[in-house]
Amino acid sequence: MIRASIIGGSGYTGGELLRLLIHHPKVEVIQATSRQKLGEYVYQTHPNLRKQTSLKFTSPEELQSTDVLFLALPHGQAQHDIERYAELAEHIIDLSADFRLRNADLYLKWYGEAHAAPDWLTKFVYGLPELHRTELRSANYISGVGCNATAGNLGLLPLIRANLLDRDKPVIIELKVGSSEGGAAVNPGSHHPERSGVVRTYAPYGHRHTAEVIQEMGLQNVTLTMTSVGMVRGALATVHGYVNEGVALKDLWQAYRSAVAENPFLRVVKERRGIYRVPEPKILAGSNYADLGFDLDPDTGHVISICAIDNLMKGASGSAVQSMNLMLGFEETLGLEFPGLHPI
Amino acid sequence: MIRASIIGGSGYTGGELLRLLIHHPKVEVIQATSRQKLGEYVYQTHPNLRKQTSLKFTSPEELQSTDVLFLALPHGQAQHDIERYAELAEHIIDLSADFRLRNADLYLKWYGEAHAAPDWLTKFVYGLPELHRTELRSANYISGVGCNATAGNLGLLPLIRANLLDRDKPVIIELKVGSSEGGAAVNPGSHHPERSGVVRTYAPYGHRHTAEVIQEMGLQNVTLTMTSVGMVRGALATVHGYVNEGVALKDLWQAYRSAVAENPFLRVVKERRGIYRVPEPKILAGSNYADLGFDLDPDTGHVISICAIDNLMKGASGSAVQSMNLMLGFEETLGLEFPGLHPI
Amino acid sequence: MIRASIIGGSGYTGGELLRLLIHHPKVEVIQATSRQKLGEYVYQTHPNLRKQTSLKFTSPEELQSTDVLFLALPHGQAQHDIERYAELAEHIIDLSADFRLRNADLYLKWYGEAHAAPDWLTKFVYGLPELHRTELRSANYISGVGCNATAGNLGLLPLIRANLLDRDKPVIIELKVGSSEGGAAVNPGSHHPERSGVVRTYAPYGHRHTAEVIQEMGLQNVTLTMTSVGMVRGALATVHGYVNEGVALKDLWQAYRSAVAENPFLRVVKERRGIYRVPEPKILAGSNYADLGFDLDPDTGHVISICAIDNLMKGASGSAVQSMNLMLGFEETLGLEFPGLHPI
Amino acid sequence: MIRASIIGGSGYTGGELLRLLIHHPKVEVIQATSRQKLGEYVYQTHPNLRKQTSLKFTSPEELQSTDVLFLALPHGQAQHDIERYAELAEHIIDLSADFRLRNADLYLKWYGEAHAAPDWLTKFVYGLPELHRTELRSANYISGVGCNATAGNLGLLPLIRANLLDRDKPVIIELKVGSSEGGAAVNPGSHHPERSGVVRTYAPYGHRHTAEVIQEMGLQNVTLTMTSVGMVRGALATVHGYVNEGVALKDLWQAYRSAVAENPFLRVVKERRGIYRVPEPKILAGSNYADLGFDLDPDTGHVISICAIDNLMKGASGSAVQSMNLMLGFEETLGLEFPGLHPI
Repeated sequence: MIRASIIGGSGYTGGELLRLLIHHPKVEVIQATSRQKLGEYVYQTHPNLRKQTSLKFTSPEELQSTDVLFLALPHGQAQHDIERYAELAEHIIDLSADFRLRNADLYLKWYGEAHAAPDWLTKFVYGLPELHRTELRSANYISGVGCNATAGNLGLLPLIRANLLDRDKPVIIELKVGSSEGGAAVNPGSHHPERSGVVRTYAPYGHRHTAEVIQEMGLQNVTLTMTSVGMVRGALATVHGYVNEGVALKDLWQAYRSAVAENPFLRVVKERRGIYRVPEPKILAGSNYADLGFDLDPDTGHVISICAIDNLMKGASGSAVQSMNLMLGFEETLGLEFPGLHPI
Repeated sequence: MIRASIIGGSGYTGGELLRLLIHHPKVEVIQATSRQKLGEYVYQTHPNLRKQTSLKFTSPEELQSTDVLFLALPHGQAQHDIERYAELAEHIIDLSADFRLRNADLYLKWYGEAHAAPDWLTKFVYGLPELHRTELRSANYISGVGCNATAGNLGLLPLIRANLLDRDKPVIIELKVGSSEGGAAVNPGSHHPERSGVVRTYAPYGHRHTAEVIQEMGLQNVTLTMTSVGMVRGALATVHGYVNEGVALKDLWQAYRSAVAENPFLRVVKERRGIYRVPEPKILAGSNYADLGFDLDPDTGHVISICAIDNLMKGASGSAVQSMNLMLGFEETLGLEFPGLHPI
Repeated sequence: MIRASIIGGSGYTGGELLRLLIHHPKVEVIQATSRQKLGEYVYQTHPNLRKQTSLKFTSPEELQSTDVLFLALPHGQAQHDIERYAELAEHIIDLSADFRLRNADLYLKWYGEAHAAPDWLTKFVYGLPELHRTELRSANYISGVGCNATAGNLGLLPLIRANLLDRDKPVIIELKVGSSEGGAAVNPGSHHPERSGVVRTYAPYGHRHTAEVIQEMGLQNVTLTMTSVGMVRGALATVHGYVNEGVALKDLWQAYRSAVAENPFLRVVKERRGIYRVPEPKILAGSNYADLGFDLDPDTGHVISICAIDNLMKGASGSAVQSMNLMLGFEETLGLEFPGLHPI
Repeated sequence: MIRASIIGGSGYTGGELLRLLIHHPKVEVIQATSRQKLGEYVYQTHPNLRKQTSLKFTSPEELQSTDVLFLALPHGQAQHDIERYAELAEHIIDLSADFRLRNADLYLKWYGEAHAAPDWLTKFVYGLPELHRTELRSANYISGVGCNATAGNLGLLPLIRANLLDRDKPVIIELKVGSSEGGAAVNPGSHHPERSGVVRTYAPYGHRHTAEVIQEMGLQNVTLTMTSVGMVRGALATVHGYVNEGVALKDLWQAYRSAVAENPFLRVVKERRGIYRVPEPKILAGSNYADLGFDLDPDTGHVISICAIDNLMKGASGSAVQSMNLMLGFEETLGLEFPGLHPI
């Protein structure tokens, strides 16, 4: 059994990690820290874990050495203590945005301040197995992924891999996201009477996750447009782009089928009839799947690629555990078998 | 035109009052105060009022004399300044809980502290026209109503007025309520991911509005059980009681029809078929109607009376404006004509 | 008083029309037809109208002559009987798609069949006052508007009027819509367990309302991408386009302010802080407002224009009543004063 | 490996069974039938199972012999074919209402028609392990449970077992339920615009599940009052009763703790602070837990017991699999480890 510890276990990402790791057949969670919930039972913060664990939150100062250390802190913190964490554990997976970008300039541009540990940026592998499976198998340090970036990147993946996309034309990624993206902390916009049933295009441009699409897809002219909608979990990316001349629908089919064949958590959802014709995030709650769909306007070359994920799973903790499995030599899908619910 | 002012205009009750009064054909709103939003446009806090009013929030210290003064402050404040308010306006309508109870002991029991202005308690008329229409016509001081108490009281009204209810047996009022009942201030339980789709029986006993049912219905053995459910506006009371011996369904029909005939905002909803057979709060959003339904188990005498309201309208600001209309000699329904939406 | 009749009054559009016309100070509704609900009270189908009207649904065969006739039938029906309707009423407003397009070829292309009354197409004025106010004042026949087209057209209006948009570049309109768009008839995809909390990009291309954007905005390269989200009423259009070279944010401000100044039901929502910074459909339920927002990426010229409406109001019955007001010489805003609710 | 087959696999209960059995380490699903979806892939009906199974729906006529046969048909069908089913499998679990009641008269009273196979009624064990664990271990035929009855029965269980409840006084069970209770078939009341955000007390009395509470708890004076609320999965029972004289809160604590200690899927949720103080169905989606809470009014003896479940799990398919585990000698919790999600 591998010993795992979680720093910052009281947020939604931390809670999802705890759920996954407590049920993981190869992992024993030995510690979860939270300054705010210090001394309380984990299940008092994550009520689904009642009768599942008797773990209590400890102080981050009392952190013991461990086999794999998950960092689930707010953005901007891990980079200041990474040296100390590296002394405590051989394997680190950081779910914040601190080590997602390989380039300190790109970090400065999108996060508005200089990175505190720029030398560490290149030591980390971006923790999306669909993009970096081989490198993850030999990694010691893995960064998490931005949930919105992941929906966009996986929506683009088949097009990019098969070289079908015209990279000179603009790519517009319209993201529809649930309220859990905002985290567990209360704010005026998350107050239920204000957030219920909302359709709020809160960030037309400039969302930080754009940087991860630029880096991972090698695209320059790409926009993420963010709209909050009426759900808790889930993100849907509707990716608008243009295919290279001559690309036809059958080429898309081939590209998507190929991506799905190579990746256990990718699925194509493209049915001609019935009510489940396109990817939908709602049935993915708790699941690590990313569902992909697509369509092509042959007259204009306008391609629409759709990707649905659970932002807390494939978009955060699920990809982190999948990456851990690769890093530690476990079966890639271990502990991630829950398929999601229907109806929900 | 009557001049109206609102103290505490930035909450949900204050916002609903502003919406109603701005459109009221006999009223001119001259002032709305808010310490928190001082100097801001009213529509920045109540976005539905954009392009409807250029009013800005002023300081409560700058309050001018006015014809009718609405107090929409948090509970426990108005009683400390009531003398000052009475100098500013001949007519006062307080929407908080401060002047709902006629008896200082009852206030002490349910609110846990002595009332600061006990002499004023008997000067106020309880602002539910269905119970106090005549007194309201000659009142100067009107208290608001508790939203949950109102759903319970109106559900009980036909049974009490027709003397059908066995007062010795327990009355259990099961209330299902929306998130706007908690007010505009954020709290951890109102965070959208925690509040969405909830069914939370948060107060099995002891809700303060119970005191208003005791006072207004003359009942002693009555319980309010509160459950939050997945909606923003609305309250549904399912009232369980027992009828006097010999009471039959036709007696109930007569009692409810009579109540509806006497009160412009009461309706009976009791259809045999279709999908609108029982009262439902959702179609009442923005409306001042209270919809009533009922059923009787003839074997046991168990009667179930159902009342649906919009907690911010009939349960707060709507009843306040209706009471104002009576006090000032206007048509009772003036400014309250909006019938609610379907679908919604 | 003008006499109005409604053919096809049992759907959601018909219900909304009835709500508006029953409260309209210049209109008396003399007849509403429904084959399916024949002989039933209107309020049994539209429960918000209980105690508001004692009208019953009559047969369309028994239609009497009237001053203004509203047609709220499913698409494809009105064009077959338009001659008969024209004999019954001098003024006709058709809310279906039958007479929205001026060109029979465009109709054939988007609706897949030849129009049954092509000569009538040019007799109708497109019923969006923001586009055709002057013509509506002298019209006898008015077509309704597509709800999604309206969100898109009003989002584009300031850019087009001020000639800021580069018409050679593609325009992508991402629409997020509620479940009432599908109408009152049940279907498997509208079953609550399947529809609740959904984010479903059900029509990437080819939505019929595209034709109305092409016609009214004079655009060729325009796509409507439709996504169902978790709400009942409302539509939000996020319009992506590119401005002409040299256009700056201040030009956009001027264009939007100008549009708002000329049109009583347009508002700009673009705040720097607070939680109501952008247009949101939820607060528009029941209101005839269209709220507009915008943003510009100065580096690329990518402009995002946002338009929120209530699909049953500004997107259907509200615009129809507003157009009627113009046609009959009433105040444009008459009967459309309800500002929407907050919170909701 | 045990071979399992499901008759009627296309409904929500059948889908949940399929999800559980496909992941069950001791079970191989060899057949699932559906007349309506004959020949289609199971994942086209239950989209969460895509890439999980290549099973197709077969005809019930082609049913092969199997080890354990699950019947997930609409109520009233299994009783007509039970002889045939018993020839096909040694072990049968029927999830419909056909074999829940032991007494043909009780069936007649609550279901309004004579039972077609009354001799079989006593051969079945009621499939709620918390009530019949020992009998289930030696059963061949197991009935499913009514979801609402289960929420009521488990809420009553600690009080009944510890003999704390005054059986002469009325018991009122207020149930708040989600839309999945109505099954996968569309109906006008389940149309999203009509069902979204609803609070609809659709059955004040007479719900058929009452019979299961009468039978299993030995109560006579018991009412189930049913209210639909705004969620898809989940049921919450708020049970109102009266304790025997002298019973104090500490007796309740002892009774509930004892029930929880004996049953792996029962939990007590009764915290003094935080936002997870009481049982809530939302975090139970997909989980087999039943969460229990309680409170006592010492002045009147009024006890309120609260039970939250997922209606499709503990209220249907989860209890069925748990019962199967007992019948077949497996670990009781096998295949039921999913703890539910937070947030959701």
